[in-house]
Amino acid sequence: MNEIQIFSPATVANISCGFDVLGCCLEGIGDVMTVRKTGDKGIKITRIIGEDLPLETEKNVAGVAGLALLEKLTIKPDCGFEIEIDKRIKPGSGIGSSAASAAGAVYAINALLAYPFDNFELIDFARAGEKLACGSPISDNVAPALLGGFTLVKSADPLKVLKLPTLKDLYVIILHPQIEIKTSDARDILPKHFPLTEAVKQWANVGSLVHALHTGDYELFAASLHDYIVEPYRSKLIPGFFEVQRTALEHGALGSGISGSGPSIFAFCQGIEKANRVKQAIDLVYKNKQIPYQLYLSEINTDGIKVLNSK
Amino acid sequence: MNEIQIFSPATVANISCGFDVLGCCLEGIGDVMTVRKTGDKGIKITRIIGEDLPLETEKNVAGVAGLALLEKLTIKPDCGFEIEIDKRIKPGSGIGSSAASAAGAVYAINALLAYPFDNFELIDFARAGEKLACGSPISDNVAPALLGGFTLVKSADPLKVLKLPTLKDLYVIILHPQIEIKTSDARDILPKHFPLTEAVKQWANVGSLVHALHTGDYELFAASLHDYIVEPYRSKLIPGFFEVQRTALEHGALGSGISGSGPSIFAFCQGIEKANRVKQAIDLVYKNKQIPYQLYLSEINTDGIKVLNSK
Repeated sequence: MNEIQIFSPATVANISCGFDVLGCCLEGIGDVMTVRKTGDKGIKITRIIGEDLPLETEKNVAGVAGLALLEKLTIKPDCGFEIEIDKRIKPGSGIGSSAASAAGAVYAINALLAYPFDNFELIDFARAGEKLACGSPISDNVAPALLGGFTLVKSADPLKVLKLPTLKDLYVIILHPQIEIKTSDARDILPKHFPLTEAVKQWANVGSLVHALHTGDYELFAASLHDYIVEPYRSKLIPGFFEVQRTALEHGALGSGISGSGPSIFAFCQGIEKANRVKQAIDLVYKNKQIPYQLYLSEINTDGIKVLNSK
Repeated sequence: MNEIQIFSPATVANISCGFDVLGCCLEGIGDVMTVRKTGDKGIKITRIIGEDLPLETEKNVAGVAGLALLEKLTIKPDCGFEIEIDKRIKPGSGIGSSAASAAGAVYAINALLAYPFDNFELIDFARAGEKLACGSPISDNVAPALLGGFTLVKSADPLKVLKLPTLKDLYVIILHPQIEIKTSDARDILPKHFPLTEAVKQWANVGSLVHALHTGDYELFAASLHDYIVEPYRSKLIPGFFEVQRTALEHGALGSGISGSGPSIFAFCQGIEKANRVKQAIDLVYKNKQIPYQLYLSEINTDGIKVLNSK
């Protein structure tokens, strides 16, 4: 194989109770990346469509993630790689834009090298891209992009990620208000310390959510989707957050919260009909605001990255 | 049925990462309670063997729990109940002494009334006994006593408890150093606030532990048995805590921590041979200290309370 074209999906991290640990993978929203072998060694970003992002390998998350993979190879390849990115996830949207590029790059290069690593191992390389993007090698977006479905980052050091089961017939609505939230602002707004009483509620919900996924219990899944820690602070950065959340719940959503560090808001729904109703209701709420936005409806993507073409 | 004799088991709460939410049920360590119908209405504690505890119904956890059950009956029974307790779990040991009495009382009375409530509903009555014992209606001991195996208290209000799966061939060693730790001291030693970074590790571990129980993954179970929040503080109240914990881990225990609010220390082991080795090693450590202690080895009790006799 000399060339591969992939779909690298958007992802939702920080799912309510699961700040910094829980993520899930979306269908239909994602970048398209083409990676091919070249005679020159190393990695070159040859083209980025749709966004103004750096082409320099060391300044591009896909480049940095790819280099981290090459670094770990015991037998170095006698070729290099060039990457084209059709960037369809807006950077700063809160649905894993940098993660999609980083995860996509390592997935594609690994495929072109005949799979020296498994997808769990690729997470470690992809998070090197995240370190470039946000200063910290976070895995909660790259993990679901690479593994599909729901994932739990058990620990960052040593890196250990779990693939969790998925509920059937589960849909996600994503509202992306097109405002900019700086990652530093999203971090600075959080207190460094939290009350033990709230932390206990949070970990009870994380445990319950994992149990709900294993037992297919939608009611428990819904009841676990609360965030006592982060949402009370970060919601202030997102215009109309509580109005959107309340609307989603009133129209039958299982739960709703901040995707990543925002500004996107997610809502989970059981069944496509309810999901469409919730989507329409959120649309009605937001179209009266003076803020441009995008609204998506997605299934849970249980596969993660998908190969579109190879030759 | 006019009389029932039950075994009401000891339990481990606050399992490492699962402070205030996770508990499990022990085999072979527990109180024996006899409850019979009487002509007089209400509840009478007629006899307590082994410990000096109040016989007055309203001052006894079994009495208070039983009254909470009777309160919720829509059709009041035309009889009362007398309770005898052979108290074999030492109060203040940290393995659910008050919980065993409270859970046992409601289990037995419910049985004598031909089961108007299920065991999940009984938790709510039993925790009324816990409120008397420690000032707060905690469920993390009464839940595993009533449900068996591992339990997770999803929320206290509304009360929602989950029964989790159990790992096969899992054993628990309990070291009970016979010193007194006042519940108030165990509470006061904890800070009211904790760093977010540590809380994130804690809920990652709670989620991982639940996943490990569902997937039968001993290695992940072991890797999840860490307590970044409470153990660093409460361990100071237990002489030799870290020596015991280190010894357990060095001899192959999956994990070790403080049972309840102490002073008991638990260690989980896979397989009876390893469990015996760990028990012996802990024995060697503690027999040189000038502190009387008891040492138990127990399977996980998947049934909870057991009926010994009825007539």
